[in-house]
Amino acid sequence: MDWWLNSVAEISLPNREAALARQQQLTKPEGALGVLEALAVNFAGWQGTDMPELNHIDIRVFAADHGVVAEGVSAYPQAVTVEMIKNFARGGAAISVLARQANANFSEVNFTVVNMGTVVEAPVRDSVINVELAPGTNNFCQMPAMDEDTVQQALSEGAAQVEEGADLFVGGEMGIGNTTATAALTSAFLDLSPDITVGRGTGIDDEALTKKRDAVTRALKLHEADTKTPLDTLRCLGGLEIAALAGAYISAAQKGIPSVVDGYICTVAALTACRLNPGVRDWLLFSHCSAEPGHHYLLEALSAVPLLDFGLRLGEGSGAALVLPLLQSACHLHGDMATFAEANVSRRDS
Amino acid sequence: MDWWLNSVAEISLPNREAALARQQQLTKPEGALGVLEALAVNFAGWQGTDMPELNHIDIRVFAADHGVVAEGVSAYPQAVTVEMIKNFARGGAAISVLARQANANFSEVNFTVVNMGTVVEAPVRDSVINVELAPGTNNFCQMPAMDEDTVQQALSEGAAQVEEGADLFVGGEMGIGNTTATAALTSAFLDLSPDITVGRGTGIDDEALTKKRDAVTRALKLHEADTKTPLDTLRCLGGLEIAALAGAYISAAQKGIPSVVDGYICTVAALTACRLNPGVRDWLLFSHCSAEPGHHYLLEALSAVPLLDFGLRLGEGSGAALVLPLLQSACHLHGDMATFAEANVSRRDS
Repeated sequence: MDWWLNSVAEISLPNREAALARQQQLTKPEGALGVLEALAVNFAGWQGTDMPELNHIDIRVFAADHGVVAEGVSAYPQAVTVEMIKNFARGGAAISVLARQANANFSEVNFTVVNMGTVVEAPVRDSVINVELAPGTNNFCQMPAMDEDTVQQALSEGAAQVEEGADLFVGGEMGIGNTTATAALTSAFLDLSPDITVGRGTGIDDEALTKKRDAVTRALKLHEADTKTPLDTLRCLGGLEIAALAGAYISAAQKGIPSVVDGYICTVAALTACRLNPGVRDWLLFSHCSAEPGHHYLLEALSAVPLLDFGLRLGEGSGAALVLPLLQSACHLHGDMATFAEANVSRRDS
Repeated sequence: MDWWLNSVAEISLPNREAALARQQQLTKPEGALGVLEALAVNFAGWQGTDMPELNHIDIRVFAADHGVVAEGVSAYPQAVTVEMIKNFARGGAAISVLARQANANFSEVNFTVVNMGTVVEAPVRDSVINVELAPGTNNFCQMPAMDEDTVQQALSEGAAQVEEGADLFVGGEMGIGNTTATAALTSAFLDLSPDITVGRGTGIDDEALTKKRDAVTRALKLHEADTKTPLDTLRCLGGLEIAALAGAYISAAQKGIPSVVDGYICTVAALTACRLNPGVRDWLLFSHCSAEPGHHYLLEALSAVPLLDFGLRLGEGSGAALVLPLLQSACHLHGDMATFAEANVSRRDS
């Protein structure tokens, strides 16, 4: 039943060591490629090969609605969740554009939108999977966001979206109101005041910001006694897409697939995944530090150093997709640079 | 004669404004793409179009030797400069690998190594241009690195390498000893102690680090009276490849081509270019903050916020080439995302 507790895949230490040794043979001073060297070594351990390659990229955007929107916490009407699902499918959203760029650069890119449950009916299209567990979550200011069955189904449906054989899993999300759920989860998991975890999301004004802080404060109080385990915290304060992402990160780690984590919402899903199964942490890569103020605390709690600090606050998996060429560069450099011996370049004076 | 004083090309403010207006119509919260939005707006101004595109990328790596190597400032023998020119040409160096990746992603990529003057004879190969102004610079601990003719020729030869019609110029460098010249220039331009500007370069030990600091200190003293103008500072303390890069950045700005600046050496060339012609600054993009400690001060002096902080310290233009896909993403997102009207997505509640 509790599949999420199953061990994650093992990282190959011999391949990590061999990759590290190769890095020291390449025609550059030792360590001169900084973060790119560490990335290549990580992929060697993940893929169990001295010469890792990125070919098959799996991009899944999980969408869902949030009952807490009734509290006036968002700048956009709730219909936007489904409108954006359509925009993803038609290719007009940021993540669609970045998925097309990835498609031109990698041999296999799968871009799919997974509708976990929206208020408005979602479209039936090729690139959209309609899971639709519920018409969004309940308003967690009044009751738990999900019941026990629903949260477990959401985790499992997320897990089922991770394809065996992918070299990299990129998760994204869309859901009007989901920075409110993320702030509530962040406050609950890290014992932080909503003053710190609640931000302006899509760009709310001062009035909505006050409502959003107040909603999170009330929700934390209402569910305080029921949020003693990670699963209960997720159930009471999370979202269908957040649960699906957490399930996907766990499943990817169990299947031996590293995940690139996007911004605030994806990172709280990643933290949830790590609370449910700590082994997941070793299979995560962090793409960027969001402009949303609470994100910083999540990254810190996960000892994560993100690759970019671009002031992004869009979600959709856009920051995670953005770094794909950098990961590709790390692998290309590792595999394709000449060694000192191959290039007849003199080593350092000893 | 003093071609480097000629005005740089004009940036189109109407196109910048139109691009900014377009960013506010795209299906995302205003400002949610952070740095990527600013990049797209910059390219709109540079290219004089509301819809900038990156197609033709010009990558030039300038190589040269440095007389100051006689002072024991480097971990690698001087022969490595030419050995690495061969490695660039054969495709085994980091910049070669990144140039190939760029070649797969952009419609036109020109990758050329320009040998400005080495001690050992350089190879004759298709992708190598042998300018060879001198067998490296003089040891600037004893005399000016270059004479007046040579520094002006180096600037002009660098300028001549910038192709009209390119969308982006990527400069790189190779030269055993060139972090020593860079530290000397940085100290002279910014009035900073060699304790701050001299770093470990390719990874020298404590003994060589002491020699390197001492060499820079002596050179600054020797040339103090003769380094009152940017051109004289470059002549006394610079390098052939640094002068060529400075000339290239100036020429690119005059031709209306933005340049992506790499690490410590390229950035001191960029500062030199801006001291010779302040208008150049508006045509520069900064790719990363190097692990070399002096780089930070150069970036600060140029009010530059680099895109990456990856702990790179390789040079060759590798950091600049690494960010090309990010610049491409910025333009793709700007041009290919749907507007709210096109996608029938509701605007924010007003």
